[in-house]
Amino acid sequence: LTPLAFTSNRVQRLRKLVNEKSERTRENAFVVEGETLIRDAVRAGCVVESQFIAPGATAVTGATGEVYDLAEGVIERVASTTNPQPVIAVVEKPRRKHSEISRENDAWVVVADRISDPGNLGTILRSAEAAGASAVFLTPGSVEAYSPKVVRASAGAIFNIPTFESIELETVRSLGFKVLGTSSHPDQNPLDYREADLSGRVAIVLGNEAHGLATSQNFDGWLTIDHSGRGESLNVAMAATLLCFELKRQRDN
Amino acid sequence: LTPLAFTSNRVQRLRKLVNEKSERTRENAFVVEGETLIRDAVRAGCVVESQFIAPGATAVTGATGEVYDLAEGVIERVASTTNPQPVIAVVEKPRRKHSEISRENDAWVVVADRISDPGNLGTILRSAEAAGASAVFLTPGSVEAYSPKVVRASAGAIFNIPTFESIELETVRSLGFKVLGTSSHPDQNPLDYREADLSGRVAIVLGNEAHGLATSQNFDGWLTIDHSGRGESLNVAMAATLLCFELKRQRDN
Repeated sequence: LTPLAFTSNRVQRLRKLVNEKSERTRENAFVVEGETLIRDAVRAGCVVESQFIAPGATAVTGATGEVYDLAEGVIERVASTTNPQPVIAVVEKPRRKHSEISRENDAWVVVADRISDPGNLGTILRSAEAAGASAVFLTPGSVEAYSPKVVRASAGAIFNIPTFESIELETVRSLGFKVLGTSSHPDQNPLDYREADLSGRVAIVLGNEAHGLATSQNFDGWLTIDHSGRGESLNVAMAATLLCFELKRQRDN
Repeated sequence: LTPLAFTSNRVQRLRKLVNEKSERTRENAFVVEGETLIRDAVRAGCVVESQFIAPGATAVTGATGEVYDLAEGVIERVASTTNPQPVIAVVEKPRRKHSEISRENDAWVVVADRISDPGNLGTILRSAEAAGASAVFLTPGSVEAYSPKVVRASAGAIFNIPTFESIELETVRSLGFKVLGTSSHPDQNPLDYREADLSGRVAIVLGNEAHGLATSQNFDGWLTIDHSGRGESLNVAMAATLLCFELKRQRDN
């Protein structure tokens, strides 16, 4: 087969999947760039639909789907990074239902409420996965979980932890989770996260980087992280890491 | 005064301070971009040598030093970001000596050993500051602590925690710290960080993102963070946050 030109239909579709959320939604697919991440996706059981290969590179073995060679200079015009990886895969988004969430009495989840920075969402996914959360929920208005930046920042965690988008807090509550907000403001009378009882079915809610959580929403309790630094010492990603590992610690004990 | 042109000596010097580590070392100064960070620097007692202001913007009040107006289009050619903040300050690097490090028996520090990513070093500085470390040491080969990217990623923490560059591990040991490495490999027989006794004068050493710590170096003990995820679940920044807050927890109790 001749290597695919930039103007070919397949490459134009790939380019849209890289750049456009609407296309990823319509196709229920997303892109994974680079051998390491593609291997992680395969290992996690994701369905690889196709791989696109720059001249001189090779496809990741063990993946399903078609392999297409790209002509010289094409991957540079398609990839999401300026120094592109030589392999890009199109991967099916997992089709998951809320009903698959663990029904165990001590299952816990993380809710990312209108998180806007892809790097922060990536770290939230990594923290949740590393600490053993059952799922991550994103409320409407959050950055898209399957954007190339978030996939990269999650370092593959997104393949391994069930992730649900456009979920309202009330839906999380209806799944039997106690909904705990996080706040650094004393107004909510938050409990120190290490002293709070985090047992049982708990959802930890992390708020938008600039605006925090809307207190007009209905929370079952509030947590805070005591620190010795100045006001803005911790960002939402650092808070997520500490909270997730406290949930893990309380369950390990 | 006429606003400064791009070719003026003052602007050319500023540009070098933004871009060149050698210039920052020679002048013992660095740049701080944006009103929020400049305010943090002033509040922390840093000496502002000068401020450079884009047309229409105003200088941060309460700072020492000269204020220079920039001609139209100059700040875009000088700033370290593509969407520049309208104020850039030149700030003196604090002149600190090792001997100023707390001599208290339970003072603790963080060592960043050849950390290469500015974002990771920024989070390490934030974590150390937020959890009450006495200092951060950087070994030779680490990314520069006063580069614009690290200053930004530290969100001002660098102004508030004593930071020492080009320090060897043996120097840290000579200050009376027990030197603890961090590792995810079982070879070092690491202790779980939550079960280890972290009391006393302790230095936590975090290793390079790709290579970890050189085991040829002399460590007094090893720590690890147990997690439920896959091998690469935690990066060095997340590990730093968890370790620093465990040191804080053990001291709070």
